[in-house]
Amino acid sequence: MPQSNRPLAVLIVTDVDADEASAAHALSQGLADAGHFVLGVRTGDLTLPEAVAHLRPDVIVVSADSGARDVLEHIVMATRDAPRPIAMFTGDRDRDTLRSALSAGVSAYVVDGLAPGRVQAVVDVAVERFAVEQNLRAELSVTKAELADRKLIDRAKRLLMKKKGMSEDEAHKFIQTAAMQKGLKAREVAERLIDFESLLG
Amino acid sequence: MPQSNRPLAVLIVTDVDADEASAAHALSQGLADAGHFVLGVRTGDLTLPEAVAHLRPDVIVVSADSGARDVLEHIVMATRDAPRPIAMFTGDRDRDTLRSALSAGVSAYVVDGLAPGRVQAVVDVAVERFAVEQNLRAELSVTKAELADRKLIDRAKRLLMKKKGMSEDEAHKFIQTAAMQKGLKAREVAERLIDFESLLG
Repeated sequence: MPQSNRPLAVLIVTDVDADEASAAHALSQGLADAGHFVLGVRTGDLTLPEAVAHLRPDVIVVSADSGARDVLEHIVMATRDAPRPIAMFTGDRDRDTLRSALSAGVSAYVVDGLAPGRVQAVVDVAVERFAVEQNLRAELSVTKAELADRKLIDRAKRLLMKKKGMSEDEAHKFIQTAAMQKGLKAREVAERLIDFESLLG
Repeated sequence: MPQSNRPLAVLIVTDVDADEASAAHALSQGLADAGHFVLGVRTGDLTLPEAVAHLRPDVIVVSADSGARDVLEHIVMATRDAPRPIAMFTGDRDRDTLRSALSAGVSAYVVDGLAPGRVQAVVDVAVERFAVEQNLRAELSVTKAELADRKLIDRAKRLLMKKKGMSEDEAHKFIQTAAMQKGLKAREVAERLIDFESLLG
């Protein structure tokens, strides 16, 4: 049911291969049929990061054969700061190309399956899988940050207990109070305490 | 280059739909051509968990149309304790089915793309993406466990400092020594200390 989906702004990226014109045509057709907007067709080269930053597509759809690995390198650079759902159609059956694609963040990878009627379903997969992966990565990043904060705050507390003879409770309250008074996070107070360790006497 | 791939033991799972016989045939053909072994063709029903536990497939390949959601529920139960790469071919274009598939752990989801010649490439995607996701989940689980351990150990330390008048250093050493002497993890010592809080006086 393509009608029920939100229209997406899609950037098509191809390799420099001559055959890619027909692939770009099939993709444009499939995307238009599904009610999406094609922002443009770009070559996956050094100009790609600027194009992506400028056009801010909802989704990137790649079609690349012999030059797939090259295109993927530029995709990585173009999406490093702002990850986006990426679908990729390729005739390249090489396992290393597949691995490069997955680590470049390609969330729907299709070998030899490019037909206008299938584009919508592949874009759906890219969008949904991207959301799942972003959630997982966000959870990982929050958990890692919490762990790192905790380690840092513990280190600052130990410093206060050792150098200032505070109890654990006092050190805890000292950091919380300083954070509140200065509008900082407890982690930031801890960082400052550790930075000035030598001054704590 | 299918020859370069390790042969996989594959379980084919279909819904109860009559059309599925031909899908299973196309899958079997594609898997055999790629040098893989088909362990069997099973219906995605209540018997599936036992079949998966018994056959221990390297990969599960699902073909399901109208009954896709039902099959996915049984796939979830069949792989909950031992996740495996799952590829799914379906004619169901419903977005909710796609979401169910992703949350059931389907790592390659293909709409209307079942042909013997494409099976190998889809299984490749399932296997590689599964590996990537397992790494990410393992990293998350290790990080969460480390954070939880740290919280527990900190709580036990505070207990020792408060009830036994220990310094932070002493509490830390007490837990480490107890862990070493009893062959426990620091977290386990902390758990026991917290369990017996009332006895610490």
